[in-house]
Parts: sequence; C-alpha cells; structure tokens
Amino acid sequence: MSERTTIVVQSGDMDKLYSALIIANGSLAMGMEVSLYFTFWGLERLKKGGLERGPLSRMHLLGLGKWMVRRLMKAARVASLERLMADFRELGGKVLACEMTMEIMGIKRQDLREDLIDAYGAVGSYIADARKSTVTLFI
Amino acid sequence: MSERTTIVVQSGDMDKLYSALIIANGSLAMGMEVSLYFTFWGLERLKKGGLERGPLSRMHLLGLGKWMVRRLMKAARVASLERLMADFRELGGKVLACEMTMEIMGIKRQDLREDLIDAYGAVGSYIADARKSTVTLFI
Amino acid sequence: MSERTTIVVQSGDMDKLYSALIIANGSLAMGMEVSLYFTFWGLERLKKGGLERGPLSRMHLLGLGKWMVRRLMKAARVASLERLMADFRELGGKVLACEMTMEIMGIKRQDLREDLIDAYGAVGSYIADARKSTVTLFI
Repeated sequence: MSERTTIVVQSGDMDKLYSALIIANGSLAMGMEVSLYFTFWGLERLKKGGLERGPLSRMHLLGLGKWMVRRLMKAARVASLERLMADFRELGGKVLACEMTMEIMGIKRQDLREDLIDAYGAVGSYIADARKSTVTLFI
Repeated sequence: MSERTTIVVQSGDMDKLYSALIIANGSLAMGMEVSLYFTFWGLERLKKGGLERGPLSRMHLLGLGKWMVRRLMKAARVASLERLMADFRELGGKVLACEMTMEIMGIKRQDLREDLIDAYGAVGSYIADARKSTVTLFI
Repeated sequence: MSERTTIVVQSGDMDKLYSALIIANGSLAMGMEVSLYFTFWGLERLKKGGLERGPLSRMHLLGLGKWMVRRLMKAARVASLERLMADFRELGGKVLACEMTMEIMGIKRQDLREDLIDAYGAVGSYIADARKSTVTLFI
C-alpha cells in the first residue's frame, strides 16, 4: 500500500483552496495517493462556476481579494484553481463530496461539477481514507 | 494499541465544531479511540450554555448564521452539538480542556461544562495523545 | 529516525500563531523533531517586525484584539511570540519559508527575518518532512 495524503477541504477561501490543491498535487507528484473530502464552504466551491467565481472570503472581508487575485494572475507560474483541479484529477487524485453538506445546504448533484467528483459519501468514507494516511490535514 | 484520532478544537465557529464532532464520532463508530483538545475559542464553547448560544462566528459575520442554523435544524438527520457531544462521550471519546486558555481568558472550572470534560491539561497532554494517533487535525 | 511534527502555518492570526508555536515547542520538549512551513499570512508574520505588529486578524475584526493582547501580557507565564520563536529555534526546530508566497506577494529575502529561517522551499520540501511525520497539522 502506498502512502496517502487525505485533506478535509472545509474552507471556501481562495487562499486555502490554493493551499489544499498545491499540497495535494505536490503529494501526487511525489508518488503518494491523495483524497480530498469537500465539505461545507469547500463543497460550495464545487458548484458549477464555483472555482472561478470566488465566493465571500476572509480576503474579501479584508479588502484584499482583488489585489490578491491580480497578483496571483500576474505571477505567471501560479495556475488557476480550475487548472490545479484538472491536474489533480489527471494525476489520479480522488475527490469526495460530503453528502451531509448537500442535504443541509440543499445542493443537488446536478448543481455540482460532477466531472470533478469521484464519489459522494459520508464521514465514514473520509475516515476510511484518513486512517490509512501518512498526512492528514483539515483546511 | 488501537488507532486514534486526535483533534485540536481551536475554533468556536459552529460549522467547525460540527466538523470536529462528526469526524470524532465517525472515528469512534469505526472502532478508533478519539481525543478532543479544546483550546481558545473552542474552549469558550464548553462554557455553560456555550454549545447552544452560538458565539460570534464567521458565519454570523457573513450574515449566514441564522439561515444556517435554520437549515441545520430542518435537516432532521443532523443532531445538535449538544447531542453530538453527548454521543461522543457515550461512545468513549475523551475531552481535554486547555489550562493555558483558562488562565489567559480567566475561565474557572465552574464556568465550564465539567460534566463533559475528562481532564484539564497543557500541551504535553495533547502531544502525548497526538504522537500515538493515526489521524491528527487542527480545526 | 525520531518522530516528527510538521505544521503548515498559513494563518497570520495571533491566536493561531500561538497555537502553532506552543504545539511546536511542546513537541520539541518531548523529544520530537519539528518543521514549521510558513506560507501566505503566516509568512507575512516573518517579515521584519511582523511578530510584534499584529496584522489584521479575526480577533481584531471582532474587537477582541487589544483585550486579548492585554490578557496575554498580564498572564505572566505566557511568553511573547518573539520569545516562543526564539525558544523554538534554540530547541532545534526548523523553519521553512514558502517561496511561492514570496513570489506572489512580492516578498524579498531581505524583507524577512532571515535570522529565523532555515530554508526557502516549495511544496516538495514540506511534503518531504510531512510524509515522515507522526503529527501533521494545518493552522
């Protein structure tokens, strides 16, 4: 069994999504397996258009949102969230969507980017992956 | 020695408390041992009435608090934090209260839900549990 | 190989920096090795003067900043961030600065507290440490 990184993506803040995906893709690049479990505000980002739209974030609250986005875009070597997510999937990463969040927030499968999601599950699916992981993070 | 999940609960935000307790109870249900180390705003939530009152949270700041609470309450299958905490204790989960937070914030034992707390300790107690854990999270 | 704690310090909030350094120093005191990977708002705190200045934080947003600082200062046994960081270094802890954050935010090495930083690296440096760690946290 190879090593695994399992990350709960609870935040929808752009900076935290970047961190999650950069760690995820870095882990894949170093030969590890990776599971991302999207829940709450993280799952909101997997709604159609959610990766680009940029929902209210702490950066927005601080008035840094646009500045940050502009800097990120100018920094040629930093890919978009859409691109990082596509890379994640191509490298074999696994995306789980939290069913409880879907129920609570009234999100239907057709509201989500189904092309990016491998499975819909509850906390048991997360723990099954987490317990066999070397690196576990909550972001 | 059985597997363990150890979570630092630093946030007092309702959504994060839900995540912590759902992961904790899920771990217990799958046969793991679990320690929750409540510190800073997380520990504030263990003050008498704290689980129900809902202190200022990011969701409140965004004006989503009441909407979220209402949705959570409507979704029949989602238990209250009080219920999740009771389940956690009945399933054998362990609750540690951070003594440094108590000193800094002037919290006395009688201010806390002593019925929910197994032990009062410093960072050494946390690390003793964390270093023998499969899953370690900071929420 | 001894046990290791590896923490991503993404937040610049004072309370979270305290948690990161207290867990870090506690791990060192218990004979573990520790790596701190400073990124985004965490790295901002390693700019000259950043540990003391206290940039905008959630505590500030809630109007708790000054109260909290005062309480912290009064509580004789709680060291300053500067002191905790010095202890961390003296006990053999390792500080990594995220190069991507430096590029995105236009931070130069001379802007940073170079005396506190062991290495400048990308996500691969973080994962190399994290994958051999017992305790992994994202703060």
